[in-house]
Amino acid sequence: MVIVMRNTATEEHIADIQERLGEYHLRGHLVRGEERTIIGVVGATIPLTLREEMEHFPGVDHTLRITRPYKLASREFRTESSVVDVRGIKVGGGACVVIAGPCSVESEEQIMQTARAVREAGATMLRGGAFKPRTSPYAFRGLGEIGLQLMAQARAETGLPIVTEVMTPADVDMVARYADVLQVGARNMQNYQLLEEVGRTGMPVLLKRGMAATIEEWLLSAEYIMNQDNPNVILCERGIRTYETATRNTMDINAIAVAKRLSHLPVIADPSHGTGKWYLVPPISLAALAAGADGLIIEAHPDPDRAVSDGGQSLTLENFATLMPRLRAIAEATDRTMATPLEVAVAV
Amino acid sequence: MVIVMRNTATEEHIADIQERLGEYHLRGHLVRGEERTIIGVVGATIPLTLREEMEHFPGVDHTLRITRPYKLASREFRTESSVVDVRGIKVGGGACVVIAGPCSVESEEQIMQTARAVREAGATMLRGGAFKPRTSPYAFRGLGEIGLQLMAQARAETGLPIVTEVMTPADVDMVARYADVLQVGARNMQNYQLLEEVGRTGMPVLLKRGMAATIEEWLLSAEYIMNQDNPNVILCERGIRTYETATRNTMDINAIAVAKRLSHLPVIADPSHGTGKWYLVPPISLAALAAGADGLIIEAHPDPDRAVSDGGQSLTLENFATLMPRLRAIAEATDRTMATPLEVAVAV
Amino acid sequence: MVIVMRNTATEEHIADIQERLGEYHLRGHLVRGEERTIIGVVGATIPLTLREEMEHFPGVDHTLRITRPYKLASREFRTESSVVDVRGIKVGGGACVVIAGPCSVESEEQIMQTARAVREAGATMLRGGAFKPRTSPYAFRGLGEIGLQLMAQARAETGLPIVTEVMTPADVDMVARYADVLQVGARNMQNYQLLEEVGRTGMPVLLKRGMAATIEEWLLSAEYIMNQDNPNVILCERGIRTYETATRNTMDINAIAVAKRLSHLPVIADPSHGTGKWYLVPPISLAALAAGADGLIIEAHPDPDRAVSDGGQSLTLENFATLMPRLRAIAEATDRTMATPLEVAVAV
Amino acid sequence: MVIVMRNTATEEHIADIQERLGEYHLRGHLVRGEERTIIGVVGATIPLTLREEMEHFPGVDHTLRITRPYKLASREFRTESSVVDVRGIKVGGGACVVIAGPCSVESEEQIMQTARAVREAGATMLRGGAFKPRTSPYAFRGLGEIGLQLMAQARAETGLPIVTEVMTPADVDMVARYADVLQVGARNMQNYQLLEEVGRTGMPVLLKRGMAATIEEWLLSAEYIMNQDNPNVILCERGIRTYETATRNTMDINAIAVAKRLSHLPVIADPSHGTGKWYLVPPISLAALAAGADGLIIEAHPDPDRAVSDGGQSLTLENFATLMPRLRAIAEATDRTMATPLEVAVAV
Repeated sequence: MVIVMRNTATEEHIADIQERLGEYHLRGHLVRGEERTIIGVVGATIPLTLREEMEHFPGVDHTLRITRPYKLASREFRTESSVVDVRGIKVGGGACVVIAGPCSVESEEQIMQTARAVREAGATMLRGGAFKPRTSPYAFRGLGEIGLQLMAQARAETGLPIVTEVMTPADVDMVARYADVLQVGARNMQNYQLLEEVGRTGMPVLLKRGMAATIEEWLLSAEYIMNQDNPNVILCERGIRTYETATRNTMDINAIAVAKRLSHLPVIADPSHGTGKWYLVPPISLAALAAGADGLIIEAHPDPDRAVSDGGQSLTLENFATLMPRLRAIAEATDRTMATPLEVAVAV
Repeated sequence: MVIVMRNTATEEHIADIQERLGEYHLRGHLVRGEERTIIGVVGATIPLTLREEMEHFPGVDHTLRITRPYKLASREFRTESSVVDVRGIKVGGGACVVIAGPCSVESEEQIMQTARAVREAGATMLRGGAFKPRTSPYAFRGLGEIGLQLMAQARAETGLPIVTEVMTPADVDMVARYADVLQVGARNMQNYQLLEEVGRTGMPVLLKRGMAATIEEWLLSAEYIMNQDNPNVILCERGIRTYETATRNTMDINAIAVAKRLSHLPVIADPSHGTGKWYLVPPISLAALAAGADGLIIEAHPDPDRAVSDGGQSLTLENFATLMPRLRAIAEATDRTMATPLEVAVAV
Repeated sequence: MVIVMRNTATEEHIADIQERLGEYHLRGHLVRGEERTIIGVVGATIPLTLREEMEHFPGVDHTLRITRPYKLASREFRTESSVVDVRGIKVGGGACVVIAGPCSVESEEQIMQTARAVREAGATMLRGGAFKPRTSPYAFRGLGEIGLQLMAQARAETGLPIVTEVMTPADVDMVARYADVLQVGARNMQNYQLLEEVGRTGMPVLLKRGMAATIEEWLLSAEYIMNQDNPNVILCERGIRTYETATRNTMDINAIAVAKRLSHLPVIADPSHGTGKWYLVPPISLAALAAGADGLIIEAHPDPDRAVSDGGQSLTLENFATLMPRLRAIAEATDRTMATPLEVAVAV
Repeated sequence: MVIVMRNTATEEHIADIQERLGEYHLRGHLVRGEERTIIGVVGATIPLTLREEMEHFPGVDHTLRITRPYKLASREFRTESSVVDVRGIKVGGGACVVIAGPCSVESEEQIMQTARAVREAGATMLRGGAFKPRTSPYAFRGLGEIGLQLMAQARAETGLPIVTEVMTPADVDMVARYADVLQVGARNMQNYQLLEEVGRTGMPVLLKRGMAATIEEWLLSAEYIMNQDNPNVILCERGIRTYETATRNTMDINAIAVAKRLSHLPVIADPSHGTGKWYLVPPISLAALAAGADGLIIEAHPDPDRAVSDGGQSLTLENFATLMPRLRAIAEATDRTMATPLEVAVAV
């Protein structure tokens, strides 16, 4: 930590700070510049509250942080890229995964038809919402456990592992009985009890970036999960909120590359939420892979104009099938492959 | 709802849309302009998914929403301003309330000293966190139930009703046993299970606006609570996330006036989080009252440079006492008064 | 400047940096912490490009700036608040000024009627656009020099000094012949040739904050003007662009207080652009004064529903007259007064 | 245009609006819904100010726009994609162009060395700044006309056409004597006099998106240029300002695809400014091409750690050469080619 003094600061101001640092067994190294003095704080453990504390001291202009506040999630802690194993599918190991399926599970026919079609087209996992966070209390909120049972049935037939959202700590055990990957949604990225509860399961967790979360906050949320001895976190960029209204969110393509640089965790992208428009999903899927994403999560639906949620951003099954070879071309152009779907016998 | 057709749309495109509207027992009124045709959709119940549905139809350029998605919270539903009663203190009735206290309850001495001082200065309620949402898993997260007990003790002595945060549905019953107002924090504004759970208590709920929530989303979250037959919602503007880094958040002063126009609910402001800097709290408190806020929630601490959380944005007790008469002057300049604290006998 | 090394940095990395610093006659003070080493850079003149330069050096994690990049505009350079004199009206001296008038000058009748009415209500200066920046090339762009002549005529009759926008360097001389205050609009806050040109006139300049400018960038634009030996800069907060769409812009009420803390320059507020809605102008005007603004610039029009620009955010003359005593009450509640309009003889 | 009435609006309110519409020779089609009435406005020419006007009428809740405010730039106006010809190089015709060079021209040696190296690596045009907009008045602002002469010398030797920025209307003629493409920078996207002046030259114009401009505003700025009978506009996405501070700007990858959908103009991307970090330039360049960009503009410098501006975001010449074949792979994976540089004889 660095304390930047005002140009009017006195020796007494500096002495007061040194005294307080001494109480914490810290040392303050003075660097006296032409315009102002700064104090570099050194010691075994710097209290998290020290910066706010120092901003009350007379003579202090502001303070600067030196270290990153997350550890387990950082590439400084672990240099090698992590690979998260989902029933044998490796996320982050150089083969790009595609997780596809409807926004919400609506019926047996819908999920089975979708699962078969996306499996046929080459998808590696199945997504589908049984518990849906909805902005309005009057919107459809999912089939609940019945939705999970239908997804399990789709997995039994197609071998596709299940990625599905859990919204509240009390539901974690139940959702974990069906899911292969627990998804924490953007609205819940800072629901800390939920993060700890999914952390405790030890299962793979797909952690969406919050709508207005910095990359640092996203990694701190990963840290909450990893701090429960669960290293199996998959980060998912899904667009951030900006002033632009032409798209539902602004896909932060930079964040994919930044997160892979700052962290060893695999990073995938959600172009469906990242754009909010089905016709933007193909170009942004290609872009995300090209930027280095380890995979994609894409909404696909047999009949998007009859979907009970997010139909506007869902691909038809035909459009999804058309997209897959284009994704493969990008993976190969960036020296990677597409992950191979599991055989049914392995998955079940 | 209005469907805007492309300028290349054909009669067949329009007929397809009319057919689909007919399935929902809706009618589409055509308005043929010079450049394009629009379709005004009329009927008893327009499905929430209709807009996304229509965006898949050939010939459609985009769609526009006409109505507001919230009802119980809207001023069209209830013209008269609502007043929320907290043990006899009226929030929203023309007398401005001031809720003051530390970010976190830290010790008996700290909370008692603070409660006495803010009561003495004219505060109407006591704030204090026993359960703290923290960005980092390594930060202090509050004393838990012990913190609530200490606040109850402070209430017993000072008569100040308690405003405190509850973070997860499982804690609602316990927190409700101590609190007079349940606070839902910014990070939890879209934690829908929590909203419904605090709604079910029927108690006053202070609903902070999410860090990147639109005013509409904020009112939809109020709707979640009110939809549980709990009309006692107090809205709280606490700053939004923008590109500006000079302040922790950007206090959205407009939102105070907009929320009071769109909704009948009382609106208060949190200048401590809205600015993140103790020295900005006084001017922004004055501004919020002048803009029409029904009250303020302000962090005050006996020794902010030793606070375990958010010390940088807390006023000293002296600074808080100095601020109170200035707030009174603004209240009077805008034809209002300051709410009077309860007598101890009434509060307990 | 502080250079933060990676935790993997070697002594050779540090030596390379020291060598480069030596080329610039700078010294690097090492502070070796538990986790990483930082280098505090000290010397007479640190090149502006040094930070970017250092980010290419092996072993460097990132760099941090210590000093503020503006000087003339800073309160460290000049502790006492500046007062800008406009024909004898003091902006920034404790009496709040109100600049009122139409968005665009449209006709003799319109500007004369407006000038008389706002003068009668207590306004201190007259605003009006003769050169209008318009997002669309098909919108009305102002009457040009004729508009300026009409404003001069209004000044002759009412004694109100003129505040009007100049959009391009080539127009500065001509506009300066009529105006008392040259306004630089939000879109031109970083039009550096224009800033230097208005700087050279030595006249009072009202510098609007850019729509997405940080407070620091705003002060750097003031620095461009002041660097031409023109200290007469009036800062004007006019709302920033955020994700919120309920208002045209988000009035950054914090920025008023922050700018006054970082700079000695007077700061006024523009609630008309800051909100974009006429019905929000009164509460936000009150808030801006309460936050410490030295004045306001408000759009008023005899017939806003027939205005050729920005009618939606203009007050009627009646609404303006109603607002003035409420502003006075806030000024007095914050220990200030309202500036007194000039006598005609003084102004002309 | 659609006028949405309040649910409390009366027949008299509606009649007043119809009367006003009649004055403009417009008709209002009523659509009476269950909750509210809307009025679809139809007629030959709807005044641009009508929306603001209507927001003053009693009974009006709000208004909605139906049409796009730009015409010449829109794909509805011209369905086929435009191709801009720069000395025979086609921008937008299916072959991806790469414009490379230093942020600022610094010396003959620097620009010649860079031009040779990027030409050798396969770049199609040369970028370089002779007039630099700088946030601080104390920063290097470019060599001016000497810089242009040096670029012309580099063109003579390498055959690379020149892309360079012009900052103010008075400089347009002079810069146009040297440049092949006139660049309008992000800060000047709404400098309307400059837009019209570069429009009048009839030359190709590279129009950068403003730092906080919507896609619609960007296209309206293109409209300003095109309205001067200059169809040769190349759009350039360069990142927008958001709350995220890990990168200098947030590259809006969605905007590339959206702009190509809404407009027939070619769209290129600037990953150097879009990220602000040299190590992010390669992945984001690949992503931009994959999203459909017609080309890239990339900062490259022989010695970025000694650059006089933006060194932190510049690639070394080696890194640039390494990137080119990777770009080619993406172009081919998306069924396109890389544009071939001109022979020297053609270019000069």
